[in-house]
Amino acid sequence: MVTLSVRSGQRVQMIDITQQVQDALRDMGVNEGICAVYVPHTTAGVTINEGADPAVCQDIMAHFSEQVPHRGNYRHYEGNSDAHIKVVSVGSSETIVIQGGQLRLGTWQRIFFCEFDGPRTRSVWVKAVGVASARE
Amino acid sequence: MVTLSVRSGQRVQMIDITQQVQDALRDMGVNEGICAVYVPHTTAGVTINEGADPAVCQDIMAHFSEQVPHRGNYRHYEGNSDAHIKVVSVGSSETIVIQGGQLRLGTWQRIFFCEFDGPRTRSVWVKAVGVASARE
Amino acid sequence: MVTLSVRSGQRVQMIDITQQVQDALRDMGVNEGICAVYVPHTTAGVTINEGADPAVCQDIMAHFSEQVPHRGNYRHYEGNSDAHIKVVSVGSSETIVIQGGQLRLGTWQRIFFCEFDGPRTRSVWVKAVGVASARE
Repeated sequence: MVTLSVRSGQRVQMIDITQQVQDALRDMGVNEGICAVYVPHTTAGVTINEGADPAVCQDIMAHFSEQVPHRGNYRHYEGNSDAHIKVVSVGSSETIVIQGGQLRLGTWQRIFFCEFDGPRTRSVWVKAVGVASARE
Repeated sequence: MVTLSVRSGQRVQMIDITQQVQDALRDMGVNEGICAVYVPHTTAGVTINEGADPAVCQDIMAHFSEQVPHRGNYRHYEGNSDAHIKVVSVGSSETIVIQGGQLRLGTWQRIFFCEFDGPRTRSVWVKAVGVASARE
Repeated sequence: MVTLSVRSGQRVQMIDITQQVQDALRDMGVNEGICAVYVPHTTAGVTINEGADPAVCQDIMAHFSEQVPHRGNYRHYEGNSDAHIKVVSVGSSETIVIQGGQLRLGTWQRIFFCEFDGPRTRSVWVKAVGVASARE
């Protein structure tokens, strides 16, 4: 397992971690298989979406901020219930295909760390399973 | 990895791909393990839900269309921000158990490709990992 | 694959199943790999979030109940469309890293079975893939 370090600069932010995940795969010795990208936090998640136009991420975050306001009628005392709720929708893990020792993503797909209670230094865990040889 | 082809006929549509995924598994040589069903698009996703009553899928899509309207105050210039946003909630992959060389699903569960910006011809990737023998 | 049994006591409820999943892993012979926690139902899901303060789960469930009301303008005849819809957002599976034969979770993370149409006796499937030895 490889641990990535991600530094968020705002309370709510999507950060492209595709290259970091790809780099992490290099030393794992898995040529064909699947890769789990896992966020070990409860106020941040991970998703896959378009990276070409930054407006897509802005629209996504604006939607979630509108649906789950920061200040609301919440019971949790820490003032970040909105972040916990958003993580349930977004998810804590993604499962991605590995082919030829590389992440196999769609043309427009990028992997985004989703910060909902930053700024903070966060971790992302990457774990690959499969076979070392190229033959399936 | 096997690539499935899925043809959507409407802008927003859930398409049952269970049989296609099951067929794809047949040649993968994995008898016991897990299977990733992965959508390599950023305006379509995959989910698991009830297939017996088509009204369930209609209710699901009606909910998402109401929560994330097609036309809204979005920044992305392509006019499909709603589709990108829905994919974040629905997800781009599902992880399913393989037993005896077959998908193991619950009684009422079916796998649905979720089109949010059709009609289009789309791909779904299926990748299995595990062992060839039946012994765990 | 190990099948866990989970008994919900309310219509809508989050139940911490972390210990049950950890116990299930013990006999699977996978020391390093990933673990799929899979809910074979269409009106219940699984998520990972904070377990220290029970108010977090209350806030999560209150949010989903508000966003997707039990009684609404639904087509499905069984009166539980809200449960089917919530499962799409929450998800039917989680993928978790296994290290040293144990689940590797973040400090505050717990695995929650999410009941949306209880009370019922439910199943959760746990399947691990990877290698028996500690070397990656």
